[in-house]
Amino acid sequence: MRDVAILGIGMNRKWGELWQMSLRDIFVDAALAALDDAGVDHVDSIYVGNMSGGLFVEQEHLGSLVADYLGMTPVAATRVESACASGGAAVRQGFIEVASGMSDLVLVGGVEKMTDVGADEATHALSTAADMEYEAYHGITFPGLYALMARVHMERYGTTREQLAHVSVKNHRHGAKNPEAQYGFEISVDDVLNSVLVADPLRILDCSPITDGAAAVVLCPLEVARKISKQPVVKVLASAQASGTIALHARADLAWLESTAVAAEKAYKMAGRTPQNIHVAEVHDCFSIAEILVIEALSLVERGKGGGAAQSGLTALGGTIPVNTSGGLKSKGHPVGATGVAQVVEITRQLRGSAGARQVSGARTGLTQNMGGTGGSSVVHILEVV
Amino acid sequence: MRDVAILGIGMNRKWGELWQMSLRDIFVDAALAALDDAGVDHVDSIYVGNMSGGLFVEQEHLGSLVADYLGMTPVAATRVESACASGGAAVRQGFIEVASGMSDLVLVGGVEKMTDVGADEATHALSTAADMEYEAYHGITFPGLYALMARVHMERYGTTREQLAHVSVKNHRHGAKNPEAQYGFEISVDDVLNSVLVADPLRILDCSPITDGAAAVVLCPLEVARKISKQPVVKVLASAQASGTIALHARADLAWLESTAVAAEKAYKMAGRTPQNIHVAEVHDCFSIAEILVIEALSLVERGKGGGAAQSGLTALGGTIPVNTSGGLKSKGHPVGATGVAQVVEITRQLRGSAGARQVSGARTGLTQNMGGTGGSSVVHILEVV
Repeated sequence: MRDVAILGIGMNRKWGELWQMSLRDIFVDAALAALDDAGVDHVDSIYVGNMSGGLFVEQEHLGSLVADYLGMTPVAATRVESACASGGAAVRQGFIEVASGMSDLVLVGGVEKMTDVGADEATHALSTAADMEYEAYHGITFPGLYALMARVHMERYGTTREQLAHVSVKNHRHGAKNPEAQYGFEISVDDVLNSVLVADPLRILDCSPITDGAAAVVLCPLEVARKISKQPVVKVLASAQASGTIALHARADLAWLESTAVAAEKAYKMAGRTPQNIHVAEVHDCFSIAEILVIEALSLVERGKGGGAAQSGLTALGGTIPVNTSGGLKSKGHPVGATGVAQVVEITRQLRGSAGARQVSGARTGLTQNMGGTGGSSVVHILEVV
Repeated sequence: MRDVAILGIGMNRKWGELWQMSLRDIFVDAALAALDDAGVDHVDSIYVGNMSGGLFVEQEHLGSLVADYLGMTPVAATRVESACASGGAAVRQGFIEVASGMSDLVLVGGVEKMTDVGADEATHALSTAADMEYEAYHGITFPGLYALMARVHMERYGTTREQLAHVSVKNHRHGAKNPEAQYGFEISVDDVLNSVLVADPLRILDCSPITDGAAAVVLCPLEVARKISKQPVVKVLASAQASGTIALHARADLAWLESTAVAAEKAYKMAGRTPQNIHVAEVHDCFSIAEILVIEALSLVERGKGGGAAQSGLTALGGTIPVNTSGGLKSKGHPVGATGVAQVVEITRQLRGSAGARQVSGARTGLTQNMGGTGGSSVVHILEVV
C-alpha cells in the first residue's frame, strides 16, 4: 500500500441554515475550496459522504450530481453512507483508493442539506441511523438513546449533570474562535442547565444542531504531496473503521463505545502511535455525553474518567489533549454527512499550523473520530505532519 | 495492486415480493449463501450496495445493520450508493480494498426492499436517481426519460417498436430458465405491443419490475482463491466506473450512454481485452431501450445498430454474444441496489460452467454493466476464468 497525504482542504465560508443554496451548491463550494487549496484542476475519482439525501432533499445519486456540477464528468463518483459517520467513511474509501494505486488524486467531500425539511422530518430522517424496526418505530429517537447512555454513565461512574454541561461550554468556547462555526459564541454552564429539557438528563444545549454544510479534502500519494504541495505535508498515518450493533439494546455495555474502541485500537496499531502521542483530536460530540464516551474509547482518558475531562480543562485549548478545537459538532454544527470530512479539515489545519486563534501549539499528530448512530459505526483517522 | 478473484457468490432463492422478509433478512440470506459458497466463516470488511433504504424502508446506516445481523461486528461495513448502479459500485469498492492489500476477504452484498411502499412512493424513490430539481419536480420520471431516449434512437437509427419488444421477449426467454427470476416465464412480441402504455413508446412490458432481493459475492486475492477455492477460479480482470450528467437535458446526445462508453473503454484497457473477447454479458436493461443503448456503448454492436440485436438472435442464448442470460432486470427482477452484484453472480456462474439450462457453452470471459439513472453513473466489470 502506498502512503497517502492530504493535499487540499476546503469548507463553506460558514455553516448554518444555508437557505439560498441547494445541496449541490454547498458541495461544490467546499470542493472548489479544497481543489484550490490543493492547487490541482482535476481529480481521478470522487467520493461523497452523505447520510440521507433521499430523506432531506429527495435526491440520491449524489456522485453523479456532484461530478456533473463540478464539471468533472466522466470521473468516477461514488456516494458513501454510514449515517453520521458517512464523512469519515468516505475519507477512508478515498484513502484506500489512493493507497491501492488505482488513483492518484481523489476528492472526498461530505455534505448534508438538513434545513429544507421541518424539525419533525429531520428527526425522522436522523432516526433512520438507529434500528428503525426495534428502536425508532417504538418512539425512541437519538436524544433519548444518548440520554440512556448518559444515565448509565452517571450511575456507574458518578458523572454529573454539570460535567455534561462543561463539554458544551468548552466546545462553544472553541467554536467562538472559528469563523465557520454555525453557533460561534460562548455559553455558560448555567445556560446549559437552564436550557429546554429534551430527554432527561439531556437539554437542548447538550445537543448538536441541524446544519447545512459541506467539507472536502483532496488526497494523493505522499510522494506527490512532497513534490507539489506548497503547505506543510500532512500524512494519513492510519484509517480504521469498525461497526457495532445498530440497536442499543444489543450492547453488552451501554456506557462503552465498542466500535470506537476497536477502530481506535486498529488505528493506533496501523499508525505505530499511542494515545499519548496525540496532540489534538476532533471527536463526535453529537451530544455532550458522546464526547465523554468517545475520549474513553479512544483511551485519551481512563474508562469511566471522561466526565471530568472538560471541567478540568484537560480537553480544552491549553490542556493536555485539546478536543474539538473547531467547536465540535455542538458549536461548529453537524451537517451529518459532512462532519467526518470537516474533522479531517480541522486536524489538517492544526498540523499545518494554520488554525489561527485556536491553534494548538506544536501539534504534530492529530486524530479524528466520526461515529454513526449510537456507535453502530466508527471511523478513526490519525494524521501527522511530516 | 493485487489481483482479485471471486471466491463465493449467493442470491435469494427467488426474487420478487418478499413480504415475509425484512431488508436485513433478505441481505443476510444472500450473504450467507455467498459465504457458504466461498467456504469461509469470516470476512475482513463488508460493503452494502443500496440505493434508497431511507425512502423504501426508512432505514439508513445499512453497513451497521447488516454487520450486526450477520453477527459480524466489529468488522467495518460501509454502504455504497450510486442509484441503480449501487451494486456495481459496491463491487468496485470491494475490488479496490482487496487490490490495495488492506483486506483479504471482502463481502459485497447488494440489497433493495422495494415492496414495503406503494407504487407512487416507489416511483418517487426511484425518481431521486434523476435530477430532482431539474427533472422529477417537473413531473418526468424514469419511464418518461427513457421514452425520450427511445424516441431519439428510433428517429435517428430507424429502430422499431417491434425491435424494442424483442429485447423483453429475449430476456423473458432467458429468465424462464432461471429459477430465481421474479417473472420467470416467456412472453411474446404481441404481449409487449398490447401491454399497457406507460410513456410512449414504452409499454409496461418494456419496463423492469419493482423487486425485493439481494445478491452477494466474496472477493479475495487471486492467490488465495487459487489455494482454497473448490470452484473454477474467476478473476476480476477489470473494474471501471464513470459518471455522466445526472440530467438528460445536459447530454450532447440523448441516444448515447457516454458514462457506459467511458467505463467500458477503461475496463477493456485494464483487462487487456476487446469487445470481441467477451463471451457473455449482463447489462442494465431497466427498460428495453436501455439494453439497446448499452450494447452500443459497450461496442458489442456498432453505434446505431443495437435495435436489431435481440430480434436477429445476436444477443440471445446461442447467439454470438448472449446478453442477460439471467433474464436481465426485466425478467429476473430489479431490486435496484442488488442488481449490479447479481450481474457478477450470473457471470461468475457462466464462467464456472454452472449456469444450468442457460449455460453459454465455452464462456471464459464475461462482462457486467450496471447503470444509475439515465446513465449518470456506469460501472463495468470484466471477469475471466483462470
